[in-house]
Amino acid sequence: MAKGKEMSVKMSVEELQAFLVEHFPQMNDNFVVVDVSHNAATMRMVINESNLRAGNTVNGPAMFSAADVAFYVALMAMIGPKALAVTTNCSIDFLRKPKAGCDLIAKARILKLGRVLAVGDVMIYSEGQDDPVARAGLTYSILPAR
Amino acid sequence: MAKGKEMSVKMSVEELQAFLVEHFPQMNDNFVVVDVSHNAATMRMVINESNLRAGNTVNGPAMFSAADVAFYVALMAMIGPKALAVTTNCSIDFLRKPKAGCDLIAKARILKLGRVLAVGDVMIYSEGQDDPVARAGLTYSILPAR
Amino acid sequence: MAKGKEMSVKMSVEELQAFLVEHFPQMNDNFVVVDVSHNAATMRMVINESNLRAGNTVNGPAMFSAADVAFYVALMAMIGPKALAVTTNCSIDFLRKPKAGCDLIAKARILKLGRVLAVGDVMIYSEGQDDPVARAGLTYSILPAR
Amino acid sequence: MAKGKEMSVKMSVEELQAFLVEHFPQMNDNFVVVDVSHNAATMRMVINESNLRAGNTVNGPAMFSAADVAFYVALMAMIGPKALAVTTNCSIDFLRKPKAGCDLIAKARILKLGRVLAVGDVMIYSEGQDDPVARAGLTYSILPAR
Repeated sequence: MAKGKEMSVKMSVEELQAFLVEHFPQMNDNFVVVDVSHNAATMRMVINESNLRAGNTVNGPAMFSAADVAFYVALMAMIGPKALAVTTNCSIDFLRKPKAGCDLIAKARILKLGRVLAVGDVMIYSEGQDDPVARAGLTYSILPAR
Repeated sequence: MAKGKEMSVKMSVEELQAFLVEHFPQMNDNFVVVDVSHNAATMRMVINESNLRAGNTVNGPAMFSAADVAFYVALMAMIGPKALAVTTNCSIDFLRKPKAGCDLIAKARILKLGRVLAVGDVMIYSEGQDDPVARAGLTYSILPAR
Repeated sequence: MAKGKEMSVKMSVEELQAFLVEHFPQMNDNFVVVDVSHNAATMRMVINESNLRAGNTVNGPAMFSAADVAFYVALMAMIGPKALAVTTNCSIDFLRKPKAGCDLIAKARILKLGRVLAVGDVMIYSEGQDDPVARAGLTYSILPAR
Repeated sequence: MAKGKEMSVKMSVEELQAFLVEHFPQMNDNFVVVDVSHNAATMRMVINESNLRAGNTVNGPAMFSAADVAFYVALMAMIGPKALAVTTNCSIDFLRKPKAGCDLIAKARILKLGRVLAVGDVMIYSEGQDDPVARAGLTYSILPAR
């Protein structure tokens, strides 16, 4: 690994949170940026009634959102807020029923950050549990700066 | 194909719609069962403000939901309402920006219906457009009847 | 669909076969280009001892190859032999045991052909069987012409 | 993590290697079991001429094989040689060109080991390199013991 990689993070936790609130106001209250570092981000997804499905468990689209947003935040931190990036593929495995009444913690890492593509994966946990509830591989397409 | 396969559909469009309303009341107004046949189902996802994201386009989780629900409905039609089935994997490719103000049409087909697993894919379109906006491959785990 | 789309195929079946032989001599005897049309190609994979695994069935890597080569041929037909394209993602579902002693038939279609990415899927059959043995979704990255 | 998990490994490195040689003689010389532990295995894939493609790099099917075999070995170590397991899905991201003349190292981990399904992922490296060349998510179906 090259020295000084930590320096390449272009946005702080606070800047990333403000960016989410500005660009995705509808997810304002749900997603909290917990931590960001070189090629990695951790998000908290606050679970409320609208994410629950029959059986009182977190639904699939909510877990998909957690994976997608966590990877997006990790990517924005590396390429900065002027870039545009869109999901091109997500392959998600649902492993266990999330624990009811628990927030989700999503840990994203970027495995490749190219000029036009970023690829990585995300592990999703019910807060306080050791075993993941889902795992996703994601590919984002990076577009010319706006 | 064996003769008489159409007879194996165990639930009608009306029964499937009622099943969704009963078990997933929160998606009541969004998902309409359009058509069902042997190993196949077509759903309409009514798009409203809550599914839209920046740029006025349908968001990724909404497209994931459309794929997941369409395949679930195709599967319920084949195995009947007493069975339980949960998504174990979804690999979704986002192909084009959905057209703003258009409902999504999701066409699911089951490629394998085994004793414990069902596998298939879903094509998602903005209504009235020829080119798909997304394509998903899904695996469902089938659990013993409740 | 726009008129005249068939005209956009840039390579014939014969040219594609010669291209494979030249660039991938090691797969010379295994892959036969059967048909090519706008955004689609059909390949035959000749099955021999080296593709078989325990139980006398075609192995997974052979089915992966069939999917990958079929999509590559469909893509080359559209973008021409001067372009470079590499697989970035393949999500493959194994549905049924291929029939022993049967060649594989792989039918690829391109769902999106962009400037830097091509996305599509492939259905794989044991020759003469109705039900697919595998289904794959693929993404290729298109590189500047050599 | 519960105590004593290491005790649940049912096969040693030597037993796993012998199992591969017996059941998959055609891959005899290519795959070496390097290490096995609770829910994890590391394999070496020896690269020779037959795995190389144009540009002198390891081809996609070889990387698919490395992922598939590494996860299979991790699974066999946990469930024992009397069980049968077959790949039902593999979603593989190709991240970088493998280094020519280098063996591949595949590190598999099981994220969920259920009664009928096992799910996990594999990271693949060119030996001696920090950055992965590929990452795969895999699902195996576990069948009743033979």
